[in-house]
Amino acid sequence: MTEKSRGYLWQKSGIEVDEAVMAFLAGADVGLDRALFEFDIQASAAHAEGLKRIGLLSEDDTRAIKANLDSLAEAWNSGEFVLDERFEDGHSAIEFWLTQHLGDLGGRIHAGRSRNDQIAVAIRLYLKHKLKHLGQLCGDIATVCLDRAKRERDVVMPGHTHLQQAMPSSLGLWWAGHAEVFIDDLALALGIRDWLDASPLGTASGFGVNFELDRQGVAESLGFDRLVINPQAAQNSRGKTELRAMDALSAATGDLRRLCWDLSLYASKEFGYVTLPGVFCTGSSIMPNKHNPDGVELLRSMHATVVGAKAELDAVLSLPSGYQRDLQDTKAPMIRAFERPMAGLALVPGLLQGLVWHEEVMSTAVTGAMHATDLANEAVAAGTSFREAYRMVAEDLAQLDQRTAQASLASRRSPGACGNLLLDELEARLAHWQVKV
Amino acid sequence: MTEKSRGYLWQKSGIEVDEAVMAFLAGADVGLDRALFEFDIQASAAHAEGLKRIGLLSEDDTRAIKANLDSLAEAWNSGEFVLDERFEDGHSAIEFWLTQHLGDLGGRIHAGRSRNDQIAVAIRLYLKHKLKHLGQLCGDIATVCLDRAKRERDVVMPGHTHLQQAMPSSLGLWWAGHAEVFIDDLALALGIRDWLDASPLGTASGFGVNFELDRQGVAESLGFDRLVINPQAAQNSRGKTELRAMDALSAATGDLRRLCWDLSLYASKEFGYVTLPGVFCTGSSIMPNKHNPDGVELLRSMHATVVGAKAELDAVLSLPSGYQRDLQDTKAPMIRAFERPMAGLALVPGLLQGLVWHEEVMSTAVTGAMHATDLANEAVAAGTSFREAYRMVAEDLAQLDQRTAQASLASRRSPGACGNLLLDELEARLAHWQVKV
Amino acid sequence: MTEKSRGYLWQKSGIEVDEAVMAFLAGADVGLDRALFEFDIQASAAHAEGLKRIGLLSEDDTRAIKANLDSLAEAWNSGEFVLDERFEDGHSAIEFWLTQHLGDLGGRIHAGRSRNDQIAVAIRLYLKHKLKHLGQLCGDIATVCLDRAKRERDVVMPGHTHLQQAMPSSLGLWWAGHAEVFIDDLALALGIRDWLDASPLGTASGFGVNFELDRQGVAESLGFDRLVINPQAAQNSRGKTELRAMDALSAATGDLRRLCWDLSLYASKEFGYVTLPGVFCTGSSIMPNKHNPDGVELLRSMHATVVGAKAELDAVLSLPSGYQRDLQDTKAPMIRAFERPMAGLALVPGLLQGLVWHEEVMSTAVTGAMHATDLANEAVAAGTSFREAYRMVAEDLAQLDQRTAQASLASRRSPGACGNLLLDELEARLAHWQVKV
Amino acid sequence: MTEKSRGYLWQKSGIEVDEAVMAFLAGADVGLDRALFEFDIQASAAHAEGLKRIGLLSEDDTRAIKANLDSLAEAWNSGEFVLDERFEDGHSAIEFWLTQHLGDLGGRIHAGRSRNDQIAVAIRLYLKHKLKHLGQLCGDIATVCLDRAKRERDVVMPGHTHLQQAMPSSLGLWWAGHAEVFIDDLALALGIRDWLDASPLGTASGFGVNFELDRQGVAESLGFDRLVINPQAAQNSRGKTELRAMDALSAATGDLRRLCWDLSLYASKEFGYVTLPGVFCTGSSIMPNKHNPDGVELLRSMHATVVGAKAELDAVLSLPSGYQRDLQDTKAPMIRAFERPMAGLALVPGLLQGLVWHEEVMSTAVTGAMHATDLANEAVAAGTSFREAYRMVAEDLAQLDQRTAQASLASRRSPGACGNLLLDELEARLAHWQVKV
Repeated sequence: MTEKSRGYLWQKSGIEVDEAVMAFLAGADVGLDRALFEFDIQASAAHAEGLKRIGLLSEDDTRAIKANLDSLAEAWNSGEFVLDERFEDGHSAIEFWLTQHLGDLGGRIHAGRSRNDQIAVAIRLYLKHKLKHLGQLCGDIATVCLDRAKRERDVVMPGHTHLQQAMPSSLGLWWAGHAEVFIDDLALALGIRDWLDASPLGTASGFGVNFELDRQGVAESLGFDRLVINPQAAQNSRGKTELRAMDALSAATGDLRRLCWDLSLYASKEFGYVTLPGVFCTGSSIMPNKHNPDGVELLRSMHATVVGAKAELDAVLSLPSGYQRDLQDTKAPMIRAFERPMAGLALVPGLLQGLVWHEEVMSTAVTGAMHATDLANEAVAAGTSFREAYRMVAEDLAQLDQRTAQASLASRRSPGACGNLLLDELEARLAHWQVKV
Repeated sequence: MTEKSRGYLWQKSGIEVDEAVMAFLAGADVGLDRALFEFDIQASAAHAEGLKRIGLLSEDDTRAIKANLDSLAEAWNSGEFVLDERFEDGHSAIEFWLTQHLGDLGGRIHAGRSRNDQIAVAIRLYLKHKLKHLGQLCGDIATVCLDRAKRERDVVMPGHTHLQQAMPSSLGLWWAGHAEVFIDDLALALGIRDWLDASPLGTASGFGVNFELDRQGVAESLGFDRLVINPQAAQNSRGKTELRAMDALSAATGDLRRLCWDLSLYASKEFGYVTLPGVFCTGSSIMPNKHNPDGVELLRSMHATVVGAKAELDAVLSLPSGYQRDLQDTKAPMIRAFERPMAGLALVPGLLQGLVWHEEVMSTAVTGAMHATDLANEAVAAGTSFREAYRMVAEDLAQLDQRTAQASLASRRSPGACGNLLLDELEARLAHWQVKV
Repeated sequence: MTEKSRGYLWQKSGIEVDEAVMAFLAGADVGLDRALFEFDIQASAAHAEGLKRIGLLSEDDTRAIKANLDSLAEAWNSGEFVLDERFEDGHSAIEFWLTQHLGDLGGRIHAGRSRNDQIAVAIRLYLKHKLKHLGQLCGDIATVCLDRAKRERDVVMPGHTHLQQAMPSSLGLWWAGHAEVFIDDLALALGIRDWLDASPLGTASGFGVNFELDRQGVAESLGFDRLVINPQAAQNSRGKTELRAMDALSAATGDLRRLCWDLSLYASKEFGYVTLPGVFCTGSSIMPNKHNPDGVELLRSMHATVVGAKAELDAVLSLPSGYQRDLQDTKAPMIRAFERPMAGLALVPGLLQGLVWHEEVMSTAVTGAMHATDLANEAVAAGTSFREAYRMVAEDLAQLDQRTAQASLASRRSPGACGNLLLDELEARLAHWQVKV
Repeated sequence: MTEKSRGYLWQKSGIEVDEAVMAFLAGADVGLDRALFEFDIQASAAHAEGLKRIGLLSEDDTRAIKANLDSLAEAWNSGEFVLDERFEDGHSAIEFWLTQHLGDLGGRIHAGRSRNDQIAVAIRLYLKHKLKHLGQLCGDIATVCLDRAKRERDVVMPGHTHLQQAMPSSLGLWWAGHAEVFIDDLALALGIRDWLDASPLGTASGFGVNFELDRQGVAESLGFDRLVINPQAAQNSRGKTELRAMDALSAATGDLRRLCWDLSLYASKEFGYVTLPGVFCTGSSIMPNKHNPDGVELLRSMHATVVGAKAELDAVLSLPSGYQRDLQDTKAPMIRAFERPMAGLALVPGLLQGLVWHEEVMSTAVTGAMHATDLANEAVAAGTSFREAYRMVAEDLAQLDQRTAQASLASRRSPGACGNLLLDELEARLAHWQVKV
């Protein structure tokens, strides 16, 4: 295919091409580049402007290149331009488009950069975009949690440790607990975004180039906070940057895993605490009576996707300095980690909004023995040693039956506890981070 | 779309369907099922025969079902039938095809099985197929290695430990070493294949069914060695079975990683030992002088793909007994692990056959100091203590310069060493396993 | 310390020793070697015999060396000899002992071997020992499971999928399911043991030696099935061998994780199916009423230990051929994987024997709706299409209330199902493998 | 043992204790707590002050408790007090010490807290301490790199990609590249430290307590920036907090891995670029001529330790909300990750300071072909299209032989490149973060 052969810039005459080897070398690369294509186009335009500023492209040429990049972006967004196996990768597709429309001029955009920094900058832009979105999603989840925490502040539920009933607890505590970890995840997503907010564009293949590129100006026009200064550092942080972004993601998917575990248990007949929204459930092909929480289970397993992607990416990186082709295999796990798990996180607010709690089941489940700690604590406040109070209570659990869960919750006054949830503080923290997204 | 709505067997009226949730639930499932489709069809035919034997399908009905499964297989292989998002998964596609052609009769194949054992048996058939192929590939690689070991038995090369030159060595030793580990991998692939060669078909959703299914007969017709007897065991080995197959795969990709490391180093200008086949190399977009071993680097990173897939799959499996939808997410890592890395392994024989060694470079690199161990050993044979010999040699390395690498190799007579490679024994081992593939 | 300085055979004069660096280099090595010490001593004795057979040690010298190795083994077992930081590693300790008692003769055992094959053979012996023990433990667990399956064959319990109640099930099915997966684990442990049952001793540092070592005879005297023939293969399978043994272990710990999940749920108040043996439970420091299943939770997390150890070991192995010091860091994860998780597996038979089931709770939990699948299957047997039967049942779940769980179990006649558990076949499989341990 | 039995607060009379089970339950817990002990003591003192402020401890009692905690800390630091198997864990040891000296009063410190928040706060203090230290170490490494970058700014070395010689490069570029990634690691360590700088003390077992604890005051006195507000969040972030700290660590060990790869290659005879400091090298037990870079290899494998520890810890965390005993098994991987790898990082400045470069070897290795990219770029600057320039150069590599490496480096003027390293900016970045450590 003509287009394809154009793509292989490095191809020398006289070298036999083996189809199986070529297919293996290409891998799914061009497909993966779909996730990065808009960022590659965007960075290409900024690079052209930068070349203009140092006199390597004329005003007119730059205008022509940018216009064609704009039209490519449009054709891409409308679905008119398809990035597929005709091209070696997204970079080749851009060059093909430009040279098709502009002839030799199209090739001049490649001056002062290499595919190495071209992909590196596209990845950084992609990660910034994803981490911002991740922050939004975590904020959305926390918002729902806090909203329901306020509405269901004093709804009684048994508190568990070791899956054993421990103390009277409340939906307020449960919701606020999940809210807080997602607020932390929001903060982390933004922190990592800022940490990686540095442009590698203009480092070429790891040694810089012999033009006085306006790297700072290009970085600013792309919205970067600063430069990756050193070209070797630009290469050597390939993969590491992605991993740290995936770490932030895994904080959220890990918290999602725990949330889904709760829901999976609470939705069982044995617990009977909650009914999940119907859209998150399916029936069984063989058991007509079933109402299975498939949606929650698949959300739970999203963390495994991230865990695997991180393991894969890290395993690629046992390498000396500088670019090696192994690094091509960092793209697939990065994209796999962000695409489906983020789609999963986006469903969580709807899932949480749709939960229907069975308050009577939960309050009935609170037994007298669960007040033992309260009683022990009261004895301590009255001067008994904790150990003594502990033994005292353990020996006469019957006295606990007259206590009510409501009273227990109300008495739990330590900051953050059921009787003092500090929802305002949590809301303030959430708001603090949400404005920075 | 009409076809799609047919697929959701469990769908109850009155439940609102959310498109984003449905898309998330479906995931890439139907695409993944392409890898399993032929095995699902094959097992469906065997299941129909089994139902006939216990009187649940008539002779005629069975014949009709099998004919339609055959035509589906044909349409699938020819590309006429496409397994795509119209269907929830491969199972639904089969049922759709049968009911489209046979009406209600098509649905009767679902008697006595569930999607749970249907997918379980397809996965086992897939894994058996892949492990057999893996065994073949490892055997092919070992064959090339042994062949070249014979032809280049006495070609001198420096032997390294710690990447430091250590002792005179030979291509014979190097080739035979790589041969042996791939023979081990072949043996492991077959061992794991036999270990998982048990049919879960007929265990339904984990509790069996109230028909006296001819599970043994069905298993035999599918070529299984035995049954997974217990229906809970069938469910609980989901994922574990896949992992053990992937372990066998990772033995081979791990050995490939090491082999590629050798080639990557040996092909550097600093070592200069070998020239790689041109088809495994590419040029650079920015450096016209480069001849990069991309093929070898991508083969090296295949192990990372397997590492990640194993980590992902294992992370899914922290679950209580019985099917949970999380297990749907075991398919993607399994298939990802086997598809591209196996395509990589298939290229290795060609890579190895095409290596061109630079014998003079290698023999020149062997310096006198590398004979030190030989000398120490000779002193030991003459009665000196090893420690004494060691010190003696260390103090006078100059005496070693008169020795030749050839003599050193020839003197290395311990079984397996350069002067006694035991290639016949390795060939016998290889042949022993190859007949069992 | 004099002893220590003796250990550093490679130490050259004039090189300044940095304490922090030395401590880092040594790591926990000598402590880890405690797990391997008996195997190192055993292999040293076999090596001495082998040297004798090729005339490198006299009859008398060999006798003296072996007598001293015996006395070292005795001193080690009695605790009289302590392997600690006085020594660089276990190998140095052996040499120190021998030279202390035998002078120069003690050093002659080092002829024809290197620390590289010395550690490799000790590791193989260790792994064979551990895999045998693993097989025994899996067999022990399966034995208890099958025993209780027989005794509690028809005890009703709700069967779950998706943690939702699905169908009437039985303790018989549950026990037999866990039995079968541990029988598989037993088979796998033995299969991997056989796969790695090859002696690397006599391959020295990866290039063989210039003596005609009797490697075959030494291997036989150590109980090995065959040789690792090629010295490079001996080095390059370092780590890989350990990983495959750990794979077998992870099959068992993975099954243990699932078993513990069941018990953790079943022991909750909400399920209320089982009371765990008191010794596996603890109280709470703050909640006097708690009875926490700590033992079961810690057994569950043993799989994480193995997962981590495997990930660690694999991450070390991205290396070219031949020994590199990175490989020292394969010992710690290997030993960590086998020591505590195996101690955990050894507790499982006692845990399982001590379970007290609450039969009434379980049978009461079986509701009419759980008979839906039975009814659907019966309709299918009577000629209704499955889809039709499915819809029919789904629309009228009330009719199911007259059914009994006992009748359901008895009717489940497919091989392996509740009414046809095939315990004899499982026992036969177990016995088949146990005799091979 | 009397002390020990005191430790088991939860022990009820009449429950048989099984030694093997008890040993398994205890694990290496008390040993691990050694790493946390000083932080546990410190938090206990702050907690006592907090109890005083809300009237639960008198002034005198508080003074007595704090005095005894001080004496414990002293006895611990001096080695007089040993934390060993006499105690269940560090918490029990503190309580034992206090009750031994203060009788019942000693037990009152347990009021208003649980072991759950006691361990959680000790872990946060530990992580803050470790991340600060990590930041210092990364800063130290970057300092050496920048210092040598300045001194060896223009020393020529071949620049590699794909392990193939690519372009003339410089030690300045190489050093500055490593400097920059460690500056990033320093920034990350501090960012994560700030992210986790929240006190969980006073959340008890996940439900708060019925005292109005002065959590904010206690947090401030311990140097925390803020509270973990919600008690469930405190429990549910157990493990996650540790993982994020380990992520920051793995950024540094990952960069160390790459640095060590470079050194391992450069120290080989084939490259011959560098001689490592003698203290980082060892000889061989069998090869007197060897000078092995063991120190560098062991530093390289430190990343594997962190990878494994992270995988282990994450695998523990697939749990529902609230404390489960599985979480005890998060301590070992956390401590393992930080202890030895950080000891390794501490050696890196010395290693780097001691490198002796072979400048002639490196400059000789720069061949004419490596100037190809420069030439192509010059043609581009002169108006040729890049593609055209690329083809032009590729067809006549001979013309390149007259170029000098020095001229090439000097001409490489893009920001960060060899001729424009921007060391001042890197120093400014380093200083910016170092003041925040």
